[in-house]
Amino acid sequence: MTTRTLRGRRAILDVHARGKPIGDDANLDVLARRTPGFSGADLANMANEAALLAARRGRKRIGMSEFDEAIERVIAGPQRKSRILSPKERELTAYHEGGHALLGKLLPQANPPHKVTILPRGMALGYVIALPQEDKYTVTQSEILANITVMLGGRVAEEIVFGEITTGAANDFENATDLARKMVTEFGMSDKLGPLALGTKHGPVFLGRDLFESQNYSDEIAYEIDKEVRRIIDECYSRARAVLTEHKETLDRIAKALLERESLQSDELDTLVAGQLLRPDLPALASSAPSLEQITVTPGSA
Amino acid sequence: MTTRTLRGRRAILDVHARGKPIGDDANLDVLARRTPGFSGADLANMANEAALLAARRGRKRIGMSEFDEAIERVIAGPQRKSRILSPKERELTAYHEGGHALLGKLLPQANPPHKVTILPRGMALGYVIALPQEDKYTVTQSEILANITVMLGGRVAEEIVFGEITTGAANDFENATDLARKMVTEFGMSDKLGPLALGTKHGPVFLGRDLFESQNYSDEIAYEIDKEVRRIIDECYSRARAVLTEHKETLDRIAKALLERESLQSDELDTLVAGQLLRPDLPALASSAPSLEQITVTPGSA
Amino acid sequence: MTTRTLRGRRAILDVHARGKPIGDDANLDVLARRTPGFSGADLANMANEAALLAARRGRKRIGMSEFDEAIERVIAGPQRKSRILSPKERELTAYHEGGHALLGKLLPQANPPHKVTILPRGMALGYVIALPQEDKYTVTQSEILANITVMLGGRVAEEIVFGEITTGAANDFENATDLARKMVTEFGMSDKLGPLALGTKHGPVFLGRDLFESQNYSDEIAYEIDKEVRRIIDECYSRARAVLTEHKETLDRIAKALLERESLQSDELDTLVAGQLLRPDLPALASSAPSLEQITVTPGSA
Amino acid sequence: MTTRTLRGRRAILDVHARGKPIGDDANLDVLARRTPGFSGADLANMANEAALLAARRGRKRIGMSEFDEAIERVIAGPQRKSRILSPKERELTAYHEGGHALLGKLLPQANPPHKVTILPRGMALGYVIALPQEDKYTVTQSEILANITVMLGGRVAEEIVFGEITTGAANDFENATDLARKMVTEFGMSDKLGPLALGTKHGPVFLGRDLFESQNYSDEIAYEIDKEVRRIIDECYSRARAVLTEHKETLDRIAKALLERESLQSDELDTLVAGQLLRPDLPALASSAPSLEQITVTPGSA
Amino acid sequence: MTTRTLRGRRAILDVHARGKPIGDDANLDVLARRTPGFSGADLANMANEAALLAARRGRKRIGMSEFDEAIERVIAGPQRKSRILSPKERELTAYHEGGHALLGKLLPQANPPHKVTILPRGMALGYVIALPQEDKYTVTQSEILANITVMLGGRVAEEIVFGEITTGAANDFENATDLARKMVTEFGMSDKLGPLALGTKHGPVFLGRDLFESQNYSDEIAYEIDKEVRRIIDECYSRARAVLTEHKETLDRIAKALLERESLQSDELDTLVAGQLLRPDLPALASSAPSLEQITVTPGSA
Amino acid sequence: MTTRTLRGRRAILDVHARGKPIGDDANLDVLARRTPGFSGADLANMANEAALLAARRGRKRIGMSEFDEAIERVIAGPQRKSRILSPKERELTAYHEGGHALLGKLLPQANPPHKVTILPRGMALGYVIALPQEDKYTVTQSEILANITVMLGGRVAEEIVFGEITTGAANDFENATDLARKMVTEFGMSDKLGPLALGTKHGPVFLGRDLFESQNYSDEIAYEIDKEVRRIIDECYSRARAVLTEHKETLDRIAKALLERESLQSDELDTLVAGQLLRPDLPALASSAPSLEQITVTPGSA
Repeated sequence: MTTRTLRGRRAILDVHARGKPIGDDANLDVLARRTPGFSGADLANMANEAALLAARRGRKRIGMSEFDEAIERVIAGPQRKSRILSPKERELTAYHEGGHALLGKLLPQANPPHKVTILPRGMALGYVIALPQEDKYTVTQSEILANITVMLGGRVAEEIVFGEITTGAANDFENATDLARKMVTEFGMSDKLGPLALGTKHGPVFLGRDLFESQNYSDEIAYEIDKEVRRIIDECYSRARAVLTEHKETLDRIAKALLERESLQSDELDTLVAGQLLRPDLPALASSAPSLEQITVTPGSA
Repeated sequence: MTTRTLRGRRAILDVHARGKPIGDDANLDVLARRTPGFSGADLANMANEAALLAARRGRKRIGMSEFDEAIERVIAGPQRKSRILSPKERELTAYHEGGHALLGKLLPQANPPHKVTILPRGMALGYVIALPQEDKYTVTQSEILANITVMLGGRVAEEIVFGEITTGAANDFENATDLARKMVTEFGMSDKLGPLALGTKHGPVFLGRDLFESQNYSDEIAYEIDKEVRRIIDECYSRARAVLTEHKETLDRIAKALLERESLQSDELDTLVAGQLLRPDLPALASSAPSLEQITVTPGSA
Repeated sequence: MTTRTLRGRRAILDVHARGKPIGDDANLDVLARRTPGFSGADLANMANEAALLAARRGRKRIGMSEFDEAIERVIAGPQRKSRILSPKERELTAYHEGGHALLGKLLPQANPPHKVTILPRGMALGYVIALPQEDKYTVTQSEILANITVMLGGRVAEEIVFGEITTGAANDFENATDLARKMVTEFGMSDKLGPLALGTKHGPVFLGRDLFESQNYSDEIAYEIDKEVRRIIDECYSRARAVLTEHKETLDRIAKALLERESLQSDELDTLVAGQLLRPDLPALASSAPSLEQITVTPGSA
Repeated sequence: MTTRTLRGRRAILDVHARGKPIGDDANLDVLARRTPGFSGADLANMANEAALLAARRGRKRIGMSEFDEAIERVIAGPQRKSRILSPKERELTAYHEGGHALLGKLLPQANPPHKVTILPRGMALGYVIALPQEDKYTVTQSEILANITVMLGGRVAEEIVFGEITTGAANDFENATDLARKMVTEFGMSDKLGPLALGTKHGPVFLGRDLFESQNYSDEIAYEIDKEVRRIIDECYSRARAVLTEHKETLDRIAKALLERESLQSDELDTLVAGQLLRPDLPALASSAPSLEQITVTPGSA
Repeated sequence: MTTRTLRGRRAILDVHARGKPIGDDANLDVLARRTPGFSGADLANMANEAALLAARRGRKRIGMSEFDEAIERVIAGPQRKSRILSPKERELTAYHEGGHALLGKLLPQANPPHKVTILPRGMALGYVIALPQEDKYTVTQSEILANITVMLGGRVAEEIVFGEITTGAANDFENATDLARKMVTEFGMSDKLGPLALGTKHGPVFLGRDLFESQNYSDEIAYEIDKEVRRIIDECYSRARAVLTEHKETLDRIAKALLERESLQSDELDTLVAGQLLRPDLPALASSAPSLEQITVTPGSA
Repeated sequence: MTTRTLRGRRAILDVHARGKPIGDDANLDVLARRTPGFSGADLANMANEAALLAARRGRKRIGMSEFDEAIERVIAGPQRKSRILSPKERELTAYHEGGHALLGKLLPQANPPHKVTILPRGMALGYVIALPQEDKYTVTQSEILANITVMLGGRVAEEIVFGEITTGAANDFENATDLARKMVTEFGMSDKLGPLALGTKHGPVFLGRDLFESQNYSDEIAYEIDKEVRRIIDECYSRARAVLTEHKETLDRIAKALLERESLQSDELDTLVAGQLLRPDLPALASSAPSLEQITVTPGSA
């Protein structure tokens, strides 16, 4: 059974649910839809985490809230309640994550954000969980470009709002550069380089594939690739900048809401993007948040 | 006994057929003709798969349909019925595979397509099975160019029909680039580089031959090679584009038929290319299809 | 428990304090604040060193002075009382370390110096202990630039005062160059190179990550990186030169005080920077000092 | 005893002949002359093969025909009777091998062809056996150039006759390029590069000598070498083209005779080159032939 | 106890002296001053050698002469009395070593020569022992330049006196080039390259640090480094040439004295440099001398 | 005991002579003088070979002729009497070796030839044994240039006499190129590159020193080195050509004498160079000769 399909994940979840006291509000179909990109081991892991959480919370049945928490643990590691951020770093994190989330909402071809938070998990001070709209096996050029733009949105928000940039976007750059490079060298999506594969994938694996993969073209072509990667990143950066500048007020609203509530769900983001206010809510716990990250769960090749 | 000859494969099939209940419609001569490029292990594997399939289907004898299914399994892996593609991805796959198949029919020197399908198998969302017209030991320059053109046909179809390109052609580019590079560096088929071997084959094998093979020429020659590979790919791409643009209506007919029936045999493709309609058929099962692939079975060195 | 937070370090210190006779003047909260960047092993090490020192000094309880000495031992190794520097080298060391310390005080975004000394420890003839103002997880561009400037201040002081340069700044150059290179290749802080990651971090680890990391861009980009790193270093060097030239008299005062007292605390530096004289003090022991070093304790990624 | 001399081979053959029933027509002196380049193991192998063949053929004594067949087996592997070539590939093979053979006859300094055949052996669809005229230890520049020209004759024949080129010459290009490269880098036979050794032979052998050998000169020299190798190959190619174009009728005669008889001996080639017809012969068996190859047996360093 | 300080070496010598019959003329303080750069093992070795020498010479106590001989043995290996140089090689060696020694005396910032000899030791035909004036931990730019100039003085003397150069300076060039390269890449002493570290020292150590250290800059910077190293060497060479040409007569006096006496102490060199004659001495033994070398004992980083 | 000195070799020979029946004509002092460059193992080997030869020849004592034959065996391997060269190859060998020998006699600074022969040994068709005039530890620039010129003399003779060149000089080119490269990169003997060491010798030894040695300079310097090596080789080649062209008649005399007598001693060469005839001699055995080689025995660093 493959986890690449909704049906496959549902079947695996059925197996793990057997003999466990599942709460009435817990819906395995919904869980299968929320876990694209999970391996079989991830699903097993998630089911066990949920059971443990329910036990720790003294509940008789595993509810949807335990499953949701378990999904995030599998993706981003356990929460780190002990981290106390300075007010300035908290604000920076809120704008950084807000930048990712807002672009995810505004760019129609990006993976839509499911949740954004400035509650630290693992090594991250905050993160966005974004899911593709459906189980997909191929990704289009415009989807890749939109996702790169979203990745660059964190740094752009820092720049627009604070006029100062930080080390917090290093990971975003790695992901964005990697994707742009694949567009040029694997997906044949650069007119400059043409519909070629540059660097063979099926080469001998010894010191890891990456090492020798990149060596079957000349230095001139290496430079052409570098320039194309740069052009793609620059264009996506400009787009991120244009969109976030235009929607600066929405960005402020999202950052403010994040500082107040620490996490926002997809529908709350929609409300803020629509220019409306969130319903008054229970005030969030005064919690802290570590480094800046955007987590995108994309199935398959991109 | 070698499997490189028809006679050799027939002899091996005789061995594997012994003691097995072969159906009256199963013809070992035909099987030998359908399996160029198979190793002895592949043939043994195929014979066993066919017996298993017959058993699973509750049949007393192994019929031609079991052998045919077994051949595809050996080439492309088991069918993946659980994959449910979105309508958009299914259409994209139909045009991508249709592009390969139509060029395979229209270019006289390409390996003619035996079957095209959008039923997923292994990692592929769809594929074309193409066989060379006869057992051949050498391949001509025009045959290689035609096959490269066919490989690029999937991406070209995406571009012409949807005006949008996807990651689905990455594998095609690898195969096409590899073949173009061999034309230049091994087969002496570039006037620019001349009748030379660039990169020795008989070098020391340590981290795999590919690694060090490519290092016995200067960076200037490496760049010349890159430019020639690019030129070959570009010319084949233009040709694919010209042919598919001219036969856009046939491409539409093939894609439509694939969406209805999921698989097309060589004669059905001929009917569609001739501008005629297919006989009404039993409607295909509502099935799903994964990534885009073209499988070419070519014996020998190319 | 993580040592990246104040709270985490405090908790670990509690564990190590158990059963040990802690003096009344020793404050674990203060110790936690003085040990950012320490690992759990460092904290354990520090607690044991403090206990040993107290025993050696014939004290019944571990006082704050033992803890302070233990912290420096963990950072910079044991004191080397046997080294006798020539007067010229002692003066050179005083100006070199004074240059670091003065810039650390004058540049608002640099990590402020906690202590400066020309008492040799480990391989260093002298050193500065500088701590970031708070537990931080991200570092801004201006903070990095200020810290590079501080690192270059040792050499600049040599040049301004003696008109002669020495080998003593080699280590400073390594740290400064490393930080400047990261600005360009990891933190996306060069307009020339753009918001890209140059050299993937997640590559195969075989001979250590550094080896192959740097090879996924062309030589042209390698040269662009070199030029940007040079530009950053040059600008920081000019800034260090301008600031130290302007405050030459303060630098003289600090160097003179170091030659007299061997070590200066943060508040003594403040007094000297304010143009005032230090209170007469017990004359320091006639001690010697080895090579020139600036020790910056920065938590996290920079 | 060395096999590099006629006398040495004769002595070794004496040893292997002991106790074996040698036929009256078998002449060990002639065998020694036909086996330059053989190692001691090759000679032992050849003697055993001959004995086996005689046994299989039900003969009491090992005749010269068994020895001759055994020599070819050692050089080119066993005959492959099961390969059935298409008429087009057979014709192509006949012209390809005919091109090698005719140039071997017409160029006075080339190793003269002893036999040419389109009966497949091992991986080859056909081959030429060429022997140097005498046991030689040094090779002159004109001899090397003539042998390169012969190697390129197969491709040239394809081009002249069919106006289409194939993958069948890949092996010829490797041998010709290797020889041309040695002229430039080892034998000091390029005025452009001078009487130098480029790439040391006595370097450390670790991953095989070739790997590191080529690295002790600059990229500029690497490019000079590449251009010289190209010039040599081009001049030899032009010469092959000129000679075969001028003697196109002889080439046709040889190809026709090969298609009829499958193999031609040296004297039959002479007859055809002289413009005469071959004596009517027993018609050759309708046999098949695989890939295109020229086997040159050269003793020693070239 | 460290050997990097005078006090440390004295303490170690005390340990090794215990229980040994030390002569009245042997002064451990002087010995400690003569052994900068010695490791603990070197000191132990030296003490044992001195004891053995005294035994071999039938003395009851270890005198200063045994200790002096032992120090040289540790530095340069045992004397090689069996080497008989031709008169021409002896003269060449006298001028080569004389060139080193004279520059060491005339350049105020060079390590002053303690002794010069043409008595062969180990692989060297002759050598100079030069000690820094005091225990030092940092080295200035002018000191490094002076030491490079001294290193080149051997070759310069050959050139000035004989108009012919030999292979005897190969080792000097290695040391001088290494030091010049460190000025540029580690000590930030080139205006052209700036105050940077080029090649990280803390990289992964696998095949030794040197291998991968040098690869984190572009080829353009590599060339800049090469040109700067060349410039430094050229300037030092010119300086050596100017000084030795001006003091040619002193050089002649030193060479002549070396040929007569084989070894010269620091004060004898001073006498010759001052233009005076040496006191008539016991004629040196007719001894022989091997290759040309200058031994500089420098503590620490340079 | 070292073999680098005459005295050392004499002492070792004494050891090996003990208990062996040495003939009256055998002089150990002469043997020591004839074996510069021999290791201790070589001397032991030589003594044993001489004893074996005497036994084989049925002699009671080991005479000087056995020692002389043993020396050559150690240098060049056993004689190969079975090789029968064609008259053309024999003549070529005579001129090739004659070229080496004549230049060795005419260039005053070359190692003078001790013997020249066209009797094959080991892999060589002929060879020259050349000894330096005395035990030397340094080599001058003019001596190296003279020796390179001698090495190139074999090819030059081929070219002048036959107007045709062969593969027989490959080994000479390797030796000459290696020596020229050392002049430029180790001995500081190129004005273009300066008195530098290019490629450190003390680097990590892993895959052998040569591999990584050559990598610490830029490609521009690598090209400069290549050009200088080429210039040196070209100048030596021109010199060889000029000298041999001028003394063509002497070369003819030497070649003729070699063809008649197969070997010539130093004094016979002198006679021929002086334009006189050799005394009628016992005609040499009709013997054969393999490939072309010049063996130079040089002690030490060059």
